Amino acid sequence: MRTTVGWQADPAPTLRRVPVERRALRPDDLAVRVDYCGVCHTDLHALDAHDGAAHTPLVPGHEFTGVVTETGSEVTRFAPGDPVAVGNIIDSCGECAMCRCGQENFCRAFPTLTYGGVDRHDGSTTLGGYSREYVVRDRFAHPLPPGLDPAAAAPLLCAGITVWEPLHALGAGPGVRVAVAGLGGLGHLAVKLAVALGAETWVVSRSPAKGDDARRLGAHGLLVSSDPDQMADARDRFDIVIDTISAPHDLAACLRLVAMDGTLSLLGHLGTVTLEVMDLLVGRKKLSSAGSGGRQATAAMLDFCAQHDITADIELLPSARVNEALDRLRRNDVRHRFVLDMSDLD
Amino acid sequence: MRTTVGWQADPAPTLRRVPVERRALRPDDLAVRVDYCGVCHTDLHALDAHDGAAHTPLVPGHEFTGVVTETGSEVTRFAPGDPVAVGNIIDSCGECAMCRCGQENFCRAFPTLTYGGVDRHDGSTTLGGYSREYVVRDRFAHPLPPGLDPAAAAPLLCAGITVWEPLHALGAGPGVRVAVAGLGGLGHLAVKLAVALGAETWVVSRSPAKGDDARRLGAHGLLVSSDPDQMADARDRFDIVIDTISAPHDLAACLRLVAMDGTLSLLGHLGTVTLEVMDLLVGRKKLSSAGSGGRQATAAMLDFCAQHDITADIELLPSARVNEALDRLRRNDVRHRFVLDMSDLD
Repeated sequence: MRTTVGWQADPAPTLRRVPVERRALRPDDLAVRVDYCGVCHTDLHALDAHDGAAHTPLVPGHEFTGVVTETGSEVTRFAPGDPVAVGNIIDSCGECAMCRCGQENFCRAFPTLTYGGVDRHDGSTTLGGYSREYVVRDRFAHPLPPGLDPAAAAPLLCAGITVWEPLHALGAGPGVRVAVAGLGGLGHLAVKLAVALGAETWVVSRSPAKGDDARRLGAHGLLVSSDPDQMADARDRFDIVIDTISAPHDLAACLRLVAMDGTLSLLGHLGTVTLEVMDLLVGRKKLSSAGSGGRQATAAMLDFCAQHDITADIELLPSARVNEALDRLRRNDVRHRFVLDMSDLD
Repeated sequence: MRTTVGWQADPAPTLRRVPVERRALRPDDLAVRVDYCGVCHTDLHALDAHDGAAHTPLVPGHEFTGVVTETGSEVTRFAPGDPVAVGNIIDSCGECAMCRCGQENFCRAFPTLTYGGVDRHDGSTTLGGYSREYVVRDRFAHPLPPGLDPAAAAPLLCAGITVWEPLHALGAGPGVRVAVAGLGGLGHLAVKLAVALGAETWVVSRSPAKGDDARRLGAHGLLVSSDPDQMADARDRFDIVIDTISAPHDLAACLRLVAMDGTLSLLGHLGTVTLEVMDLLVGRKKLSSAGSGGRQATAAMLDFCAQHDITADIELLPSARVNEALDRLRRNDVRHRFVLDMSDLD
């Protein structure tokens, strides 16, 4: 075993700095020095759901960048010193139909999550990227393309791929109109990616004050959802509506924005939803969702971001301020993603 | 005015034979002798919702075939003696984006329904096809292609177009797997159309006894939804699932059948539905709906049916037995669609 240090729920929801054990490298493993780790909404959910009495340690963090420090005996794709990025899945069965078609995130045997998952070999609980070192199977690490700032690139590995997948699958590009509801970690990256893909991109927000932010991100403009006239004018207007709002909310308002044969993709709120079938029927609209992505799509997304100079807009904090970051994220007080600088753990 | 005779809710849900007034022909109108009218689930809903106290007469019926008996002064597409078919919409604004793209069924000013609608010129309540004569704007009548039995073709005008639309929009054809849940009026036509389009087509039913029926309709086979092993084997297997079940039911079971990037199209139950977003997320599945169709699509569907010799499997009853037909439809005791023979109204 190897020992590093990380931020563990002890007890949840407060994180405390503790020693963290990592496995000795298997032949196909990399050891990664974690430099930057994004703070994702999922981390809040995991902390809220964490039952300390279950004696399973929780170290959050599933979007991080760093540098390879050591490689297993069979690793050929990476060498020590390589910049690398890891997202929210770190293994899968590799044999099911989903894995074979490159959608390891939908592995029918369930992918191994970066934290809170169960290692497929030793059955241990995986511990996440809020730590100074991570050991990962080489297939699930991605070379970080040159030119991407490693701190601002960290959120691409979860927020980025989560919005990339539906934009790509639904054909966002020139001549396509995209609306993005919500302008948090997911939403602001959806805007940047949709704009770079060539789509006419609008932000939907309750607040008229988001107009400057929307335009700075490259959007054509802002639709103020609290303005009935603006919403009525925008009815049936968007081929793709990317809904990144994390709280439960009325889907009818978003569905009204969807054009004939278009799609509302739910990315923020992943619980139970209720809707009127007539809101889909009229205009033959579709409701969909997406989350994370496969290895190929993640690599393609990183290449695209490098070509188009896309990273997240972040607030970088020393990892010792992780509890402050989580508190502020809970209040939506972040523009647009917190990233923890792990160098203070040395 | 012209006077004919029809079956009116008097009081609902019982229908009684009464005189029915039709408007004098406008320049773009046809008078149609109604020969055959299908009995649709919507007719039951309309009867259940009918409030006699509102003094709006209700004559159901919105899928019928007949013969043109008279034409308005400007009609050129039809002449007396032409076989003709009418569906569930008989007018639309003709100017909105939906009408311009041939989706009059989604007219933003709302299409005029064949019964229970409001005539766009005189404001009268439209009275349906459970009658011996109908007066309809020529644009919303369809020539009935030669070779189609006019009684068995009547249900194509509502049930047929309703299943044709999603099959067509979602790309049913060779190499595509389609599952059809429910084998009533909509479902049995969905099977016939999907088979004729070249798709590998399966029926999903609670009852193993439906196997013979499924194969007779051309399906590859039957999936018994009450058999957990069969349903597990069929997980993620169908690009298109056409759900024609009219009662509220668990969508999760149908969504599990949908393949990666595939679609569950809800056609039977058009009320409120509840689902787990994760059931869409895993496999990037889509939920959609459809209903009725535009003029172009209806004409294309009728041509396709004529080429492939597709009509509904019907039980033909004299119109005087309409109340019996409705009672039996309410109990799902029909294979697969009742059609009323209107000649007994002479």
